[in-house]
Amino acid sequence: MKKDLGAVQAVFPMPVLMVAAYNDDGTPNVMNAAWGMICEQDQIALFLDPEHKTTKNMRARKAFTVALADRAHMAEADFFGIASGNTMPYKFARSGLTARKSAFVDAPVVEEFPVVMECQLIDVIEKGSFFCAVGRIVNTAADERVLNEKGTIDAAKLDALMFDTFGHGYYSVGEKAGQAWNAGAGLMKKD
Amino acid sequence: MKKDLGAVQAVFPMPVLMVAAYNDDGTPNVMNAAWGMICEQDQIALFLDPEHKTTKNMRARKAFTVALADRAHMAEADFFGIASGNTMPYKFARSGLTARKSAFVDAPVVEEFPVVMECQLIDVIEKGSFFCAVGRIVNTAADERVLNEKGTIDAAKLDALMFDTFGHGYYSVGEKAGQAWNAGAGLMKKD
Repeated sequence: MKKDLGAVQAVFPMPVLMVAAYNDDGTPNVMNAAWGMICEQDQIALFLDPEHKTTKNMRARKAFTVALADRAHMAEADFFGIASGNTMPYKFARSGLTARKSAFVDAPVVEEFPVVMECQLIDVIEKGSFFCAVGRIVNTAADERVLNEKGTIDAAKLDALMFDTFGHGYYSVGEKAGQAWNAGAGLMKKD
Repeated sequence: MKKDLGAVQAVFPMPVLMVAAYNDDGTPNVMNAAWGMICEQDQIALFLDPEHKTTKNMRARKAFTVALADRAHMAEADFFGIASGNTMPYKFARSGLTARKSAFVDAPVVEEFPVVMECQLIDVIEKGSFFCAVGRIVNTAADERVLNEKGTIDAAKLDALMFDTFGHGYYSVGEKAGQAWNAGAGLMKKD
């Protein structure tokens, strides 16, 4: 029996994305965003408030990076969601994290996060209240410690955080439950 | 030290969304989609191939539902991602799951999944290769067993699956690591 709850933002889990771009003065700024997803083979879509400092920053330099927050940096990741770059332009310095300039785009790469997508801002789609920043993923960089023997990213090694939009919790990843395009193969072969 | 991997779709975790709409003959059809996210307070964006049967179905009836897949129904959820509604129009019947018509929109609610958003298709944004179906969440229905004492959804009770786009695995949710707008409060108050 289901209970009707009204309009709930019932996507779970959401990622904990660290979106970084340069301020006008060249200092890094980072925000915490859950509303982002891959939208094409080499593109990511971010649904951001146009008034965020990060939104203004990425439009100015046509570039941004998106990193995955891990459990070891939960305090910093959450702080990037509490502090506003509009009112605290020095927020990145306060976090104590370090950044280098991407070799691919005009945006900062935060060293401490395990995986980062380096993106060119290729479009901003505004239609009524719909606002979507679209980035082309030019490169993805990952710490060697999160790679498997084939040199690709191992989800189990990331210790990535996820966001629970219902209770505003951060959760860690649990056990592997199955393999896609395999778990349902029995139903495919049913007759 | 980070290693450059080229363009990787490094959003993790992704949700395991069950997108349902009616076929022309009124039978339900369900697809498995990872590329979906909340895009406004009461709206969800789905990045779908326009050629999917579900995409055609939702455009015809201007409605769809989006449910969260749980571990108990991993085989069915994965099957909905293997089988195509274009070539196997009876795929929902084969899954063995049950559906009822939504009381809010002209789309099926799959009873077995714990949470479902009932959506009106309010826009389809096509711009070059960008394709995004936007739905207004008219209602969200949840099994009573996944609600907490306040009557809202408890993420820990969902036993929801998440998708690992790197290794194509399904993972379960792990332990709660912290609370948003709290874990980083110490940095906010630093001076």
